[in-house]
Amino acid sequence: MSKQINLSQRARDIEPFQVMDILAQGKALQAQGRDIIHLEIGEPDFLTPQPIIDAAVASLKQGDTFYTPSLGLMALREKIAEWYQQQYQLTISPRRIVVTPGASGALLLAIGALLEAGKHLLMTDPGYPCNRHFARFVEASAVAVPVNAESDYQLTPEHIEQYWNQNTQLALVATPSNPTGSILDKARLQALANAVRSKQGVLVVDEIYHGLNYDGTHLPSALEVDDNTIVINSFSKFFGMTGWRLGWLVIPESLEPAIERLAQNLFLAAPTTAQYAALAAFEQRSLDILEQRRQAFEKRRDTLLPALTALGFEFPVTPQGAFYLYADCSKLLNDKVTDSMQLSRYLLNEAGVAITPGQDFGHYQAAHHLRFAYTTEVSRLLTAAERIETALQKLR
Amino acid sequence: MSKQINLSQRARDIEPFQVMDILAQGKALQAQGRDIIHLEIGEPDFLTPQPIIDAAVASLKQGDTFYTPSLGLMALREKIAEWYQQQYQLTISPRRIVVTPGASGALLLAIGALLEAGKHLLMTDPGYPCNRHFARFVEASAVAVPVNAESDYQLTPEHIEQYWNQNTQLALVATPSNPTGSILDKARLQALANAVRSKQGVLVVDEIYHGLNYDGTHLPSALEVDDNTIVINSFSKFFGMTGWRLGWLVIPESLEPAIERLAQNLFLAAPTTAQYAALAAFEQRSLDILEQRRQAFEKRRDTLLPALTALGFEFPVTPQGAFYLYADCSKLLNDKVTDSMQLSRYLLNEAGVAITPGQDFGHYQAAHHLRFAYTTEVSRLLTAAERIETALQKLR
Repeated sequence: MSKQINLSQRARDIEPFQVMDILAQGKALQAQGRDIIHLEIGEPDFLTPQPIIDAAVASLKQGDTFYTPSLGLMALREKIAEWYQQQYQLTISPRRIVVTPGASGALLLAIGALLEAGKHLLMTDPGYPCNRHFARFVEASAVAVPVNAESDYQLTPEHIEQYWNQNTQLALVATPSNPTGSILDKARLQALANAVRSKQGVLVVDEIYHGLNYDGTHLPSALEVDDNTIVINSFSKFFGMTGWRLGWLVIPESLEPAIERLAQNLFLAAPTTAQYAALAAFEQRSLDILEQRRQAFEKRRDTLLPALTALGFEFPVTPQGAFYLYADCSKLLNDKVTDSMQLSRYLLNEAGVAITPGQDFGHYQAAHHLRFAYTTEVSRLLTAAERIETALQKLR
Repeated sequence: MSKQINLSQRARDIEPFQVMDILAQGKALQAQGRDIIHLEIGEPDFLTPQPIIDAAVASLKQGDTFYTPSLGLMALREKIAEWYQQQYQLTISPRRIVVTPGASGALLLAIGALLEAGKHLLMTDPGYPCNRHFARFVEASAVAVPVNAESDYQLTPEHIEQYWNQNTQLALVATPSNPTGSILDKARLQALANAVRSKQGVLVVDEIYHGLNYDGTHLPSALEVDDNTIVINSFSKFFGMTGWRLGWLVIPESLEPAIERLAQNLFLAAPTTAQYAALAAFEQRSLDILEQRRQAFEKRRDTLLPALTALGFEFPVTPQGAFYLYADCSKLLNDKVTDSMQLSRYLLNEAGVAITPGQDFGHYQAAHHLRFAYTTEVSRLLTAAERIETALQKLR
C-alpha cells in the first residue's frame, strides 16, 4: 500500500539549515556526557519576564481562550502604537498594526500580499535564510545581493541602483541584522528608502532585534524616514517571548483590508494567550527587566568580541545590535579545515562549542564566516573562547 | 509622501467573507441595544476544559516559554499517536505526527508541500472557503466540484472520475464537513481513497470536527482505509482550544524531512504554551468534559434541526457531525428576499439572528442556502427559531 508521494518543486527548493546537523551532532555528544556550549542558537536564554507570564496566567484564569480578531486584540494594537510614540516619537494609527503569529506570520503576510509570482525581492547575502524561502513559497524569488563590511553588511542606494530591474518589487533589510548585528542609522535608512521609492518599489524592514542595540546608539525605525515602509517586528527577541509565537507588522492603512483577508485565511488569528500576555510587555516593570537583559547582552558582546578577535577571528565592523557576531575565519583555515563548515564541525568535536556555519545565511563568502550567538552567560562565553583557543592551537 | 502600494494578484484574488458584513451589522445593532443571537460563528461557545487550562498555567509557572522543535514537542506527538490507537485502533508512528499552528498551519504545510504551482486541488462546493485560498496562495488553484444531497455533499469516486485531469494532484474532503455537517463512512472513504489512488493523486482529509459526531455513528479516520492519506486535525473544535492555535497533520513518514524544512521556514514552531496545555487534552477528566459537550451539541442539533424544518428550511441529509446545519431556504425566498444573502440580512435586522450566507462556502446553489452554527445554548436556539418564525411571517 506504500507509495511515493511527490513533493512540489517549491518544497524541494527549500534548503535545510546546516545548523541542524550541528545541533544533532551536539546532542549526540551531549548524550555521551560531553559538555557542549551552545553559541549557535538564535534564541535568548532568558525566560519570558515574569510580569508577562503573570498576565498570561491571569488571562487563562479569566477564560480568555477564544479566537481574537484576525488582526489582533485592539488593546494590543493600541499598546504597540503607543510604543512607537514612546520609543520613536511616531504617531501610528493602531489600524496600521497587525498582530501576527511571530515575525514569520508577518513576513508571510507582507510577502504574500505584495510580491507577485515570478517577481523579485532584493535581500542581503548574508541574511536571514527564511526570507528567500517565503519568496519561493509564493512562487516568487529572492535576489541575494552580496554585501560585506564596506556597506556594514547592509543594502545601499548603490545596490538598489545596480540590482533593481523591471522584475524587482521589494527590498528587504534587517536592522539590526541577523547574522551580522549591523544596523542602519537614520541617514542610511532615509537614503535607502528614497532609492527604493525612486524605483516605485516597496521597502520592507525587519526590526525584530530592535531594542537590542548597544553603544548608546539610537536605533531608528524605518517608519521615521518613510511612512510607507512595511515594518516587521516581533515579541520574540527583545521582549523575550520566543515560544509564544507573536509578532507584528506595520502597514500603510490602505493595505488593512487585504492583509485582514489574508490573515483570516492563512491563520485566522495569532494565539490568544500570547496576545494577552504581550499587553504586559510594555509595563514599566517588564521594561526594567528587559533593560537589564539588554545590558547583559551588551556585556556578553563586549566579552566575546575581543576574545574571538584575540584568537584570529576578524570583525571588520563592530556589531551594534542583536546577539550575533559574524566572524570572518579566513585566517584560521588551512589544509586541515578548509572552510567554515569544517571549522564549525571541528570546534564542536574538539572544543565542544556549537557555532552556525556561514552557509546558513547565503553563499557569498559563506565558506569563511561563522555566526556566534551570545545567548549564553559571560562565564560560558569565556570558557568557550578558552576551549576554542586550545582547539585552534592543535590545528597549527 | 503617501503613495499607492500595489497588491499582488494573489492577494486580490482572495475574497472577503460575507459573514464579516453580517458580523459588523450585528455589532452595530448590539451597540444600539438590540439582542443578537449568534448562529453564524464557527467557534464552540464552551471555554477550554479546565484541566487543559491548568496544564497551561503549570507550564508557564515552570518557565516553558522557549521554542519547541518545529514539528512539535515529542511528548505531544506521542500523545496524539496514542489517541489514534485508542480511538481508531491505528498504530501511527509519532514521527508521522506534525504539530502545527492550528489546522490552518497544517493546511498551509500540506498544500505547500504537495501542490505544484499551476496544478489543481479538487474540493467540494459548498466547502470551507480557506481551502481554495491556500491553493491560490501558492499559485495553484482549487477546482470546486458542485455537490449536493445526492452524495451527502461529499466527493465520490464518480466525481474523481469526472473532474480529475492531468493537472489534478490532490483531492480534499472534510468529514464531518463544514458547512454541511455530513460525514463519510468507512466504505465511502475507502472508495474515494481508491479512486484518488488510481489517479496517482493524494487524498487530503480534513478531520477537524472529528469527535463531534452524533447518532452513535462511528466516525472513521481516513487513515483506517489508506495509510498514505494526509490527515488534517485540530485542537480547536472537539478539544475546545480555538484561541490556542494548535492543530496537527498526519503524513507518510517519507515526507517528514520536507515538512520539517517547510515548518522551520514558515512558522518555526507552534505556540509552546498551547502544546503543553494540549498534553492534558487526552486525560480522562478532559475527555469526560468533552463527551458532555458532545452530548450538548447533539441536543442542540436535535433542537434546532426540527425547529428550522418546521419553519420551511429543508435538510435533505441529516447532519451527523460538526456543529452546522446547511439549510436550503428556497421555499422561503420570494420577491422581497430573493436570495440567501438578503434573507440573512433580513433575519439579522428583523429577528436579531445572525446566520452565515451560503456564498461564503462557494457558488453552487449558494444563493438559496444558509449555514446555522449551533454554538449557543438550547434556550437561545429556541428563541432564535421563534424570532425567525415571526420574521418569516412578515415576509408572506
